Amino acid sequence: MREHLYAVIMAGGVGSRLWPRSRAATPKQFLDLVGPRTMLQETAARIEPLIPLDRVLIVTAEDYAEKVGAQLPNLPEENLILEPGPRGTAPCIGLAAIILQQRDPEATMAVFPADHVIADAAGFREAIATAGQIAQDGYLVTLGITPDRPTTGYGYIQRGQPLARTGALPAFQVQRFTEKPDTATAEQFVASGEYYWNGGIFIWRVDTILDQMAGLLPALYTHLEALAQVWDSPARREALAAAWKEVPKTTIDYGVMEKAGRVAVVPVEIGWDDVGNWATLSALMESDEVGNVVRGDGQPLLLETEDTYVYTSGARLVAAAGLAGFVVVDTPDALLICPKDRAQAVRDIVAQLEAEGYNEYL
Amino acid sequence: MREHLYAVIMAGGVGSRLWPRSRAATPKQFLDLVGPRTMLQETAARIEPLIPLDRVLIVTAEDYAEKVGAQLPNLPEENLILEPGPRGTAPCIGLAAIILQQRDPEATMAVFPADHVIADAAGFREAIATAGQIAQDGYLVTLGITPDRPTTGYGYIQRGQPLARTGALPAFQVQRFTEKPDTATAEQFVASGEYYWNGGIFIWRVDTILDQMAGLLPALYTHLEALAQVWDSPARREALAAAWKEVPKTTIDYGVMEKAGRVAVVPVEIGWDDVGNWATLSALMESDEVGNVVRGDGQPLLLETEDTYVYTSGARLVAAAGLAGFVVVDTPDALLICPKDRAQAVRDIVAQLEAEGYNEYL
Repeated sequence: MREHLYAVIMAGGVGSRLWPRSRAATPKQFLDLVGPRTMLQETAARIEPLIPLDRVLIVTAEDYAEKVGAQLPNLPEENLILEPGPRGTAPCIGLAAIILQQRDPEATMAVFPADHVIADAAGFREAIATAGQIAQDGYLVTLGITPDRPTTGYGYIQRGQPLARTGALPAFQVQRFTEKPDTATAEQFVASGEYYWNGGIFIWRVDTILDQMAGLLPALYTHLEALAQVWDSPARREALAAAWKEVPKTTIDYGVMEKAGRVAVVPVEIGWDDVGNWATLSALMESDEVGNVVRGDGQPLLLETEDTYVYTSGARLVAAAGLAGFVVVDTPDALLICPKDRAQAVRDIVAQLEAEGYNEYL
Repeated sequence: MREHLYAVIMAGGVGSRLWPRSRAATPKQFLDLVGPRTMLQETAARIEPLIPLDRVLIVTAEDYAEKVGAQLPNLPEENLILEPGPRGTAPCIGLAAIILQQRDPEATMAVFPADHVIADAAGFREAIATAGQIAQDGYLVTLGITPDRPTTGYGYIQRGQPLARTGALPAFQVQRFTEKPDTATAEQFVASGEYYWNGGIFIWRVDTILDQMAGLLPALYTHLEALAQVWDSPARREALAAAWKEVPKTTIDYGVMEKAGRVAVVPVEIGWDDVGNWATLSALMESDEVGNVVRGDGQPLLLETEDTYVYTSGARLVAAAGLAGFVVVDTPDALLICPKDRAQAVRDIVAQLEAEGYNEYL
């Protein structure tokens, strides 16, 4: 099976909660937010021992083609799929699936976002390998992140009966998907031990997912079939643009996973984090003895400051006194200051910039 | 007496607590911190109805000669006194006094800093006029700011017996000067009703102050006498440089006021503020309905932010969420962030920059 295992990395997001570093022109996945490599490079490197780059597809926006090429110079050109616009994860995944099916009808694909952190790369690959085996029985498989807190920020997956035939790791039928719950429900979920976070990591055979799409998202499937016919011809670009104007916007969770019959979950504890905002990013990084994390080319001057994340591009001197639990992100043209517990508000800042037409800062 | 009344504006300070706007090259008094005019311009304009610019002397550092010329273009050139280096207020005032004495032996001089705010300009002029009359009886007169809180940041003046012969306002003998007291003492002072803040505003006849200096600071006085001889000759600059290397560093408070016999105080309530730091500056300015004060050429984006002062030069976008009681000062090459109650720490930031040799930011 292993030579039929492919990776599909979704790299089209905008990452607005990591503004002002994450911008429309260079979103989160193309930034070295956590380590010396960009998140996209890290994502490709993480899977590489299991799936080499020639079996990795990157799906992203047309505008980011050059960025992907520069960051993954060894990626075969035909492995780069450029969406004319964002239509949700279902069309994106469907397109990758039908392209893979043409190349290899036996293909199994592992889908994951380009902008997540996974501390335990070996554990991640083991889970993907296990999920790949389960997928051979016609399952749509998802990794279930074992929750360590009752957050209301993620979707939850309830496990059902254990699967008899699995790989190195245990796996379960999926009982139910629940979108972001309220706090009481989330607490109940976590206390029960039966629920996992939905981290958006999926594994399935291409024939399985395309069968499901044909049944559950027939309009999309019709477009995909037509696109497959012209994919390797000069008509590709125009056909894709036309199709993408018409396909309904849908997520794979809502469009397929919540409705499909044969769905399985492989529970994992792999140090997963979606790097949702500056506070969660900061928590992933090693801090100094007073809890400060300092990144970027500049050297800030921090007096009596603790539990604070400072990124400074070096374009100017950043000096602070008396900060506790703050985020300061200083880029050449925009500066963000907020307490860590308000890091989600960055999305509102970006929304306001958008509403007021400050496109140069987006 | 009025045509013999002169003003001496001390404009040589560095204002490090208002960093990063106040810099070695352009300190506080040359900035438009409070209104559309610079503090120096404001200081000259405030006294002008009583003392026109041709009877105003500005004492400042050599480096600031151009700034003074640009900001007060109508100041006669001979009214600009350039110190080769800072030696404290006593030499500065002594030099101005002896120069004035040469021009007008009947001169009475009012001395005040260039970087204070006085809301009630008419009240200020009335107090200076009253003090000028008292000065004719050979008093060293100081304005005593009626305290509205027991701050430990200023020196205090205790009043003694009321003066019989005064101007439009009451005045008192000075009983005692006390340098910055501790909190308990300050509380006692304010509760007694007998104490005033020392705002560094003095009025005296030049012959009175020079007599006192001859007695109390004889080394300085000898230098001043010698300088007077060469002031209007080409030897001035060299003589001043040589003298200023030798004169002992002394303040007028310690060197003269605390020791002199005939000292008077004119109590005032004129909306005086020394604009000591960003928090006190902010408190002087009109805020919006949630207590924010926004200044500078840029327009910051403030979400759920209150009681916060933001200056932004417009060199970049400043965005903040969830700030309460903060100061954010964004200049093209340096940024300051601190809670208002830590605004005094700015001095420590500047000291650290100095210690680490970051002269470009000083």
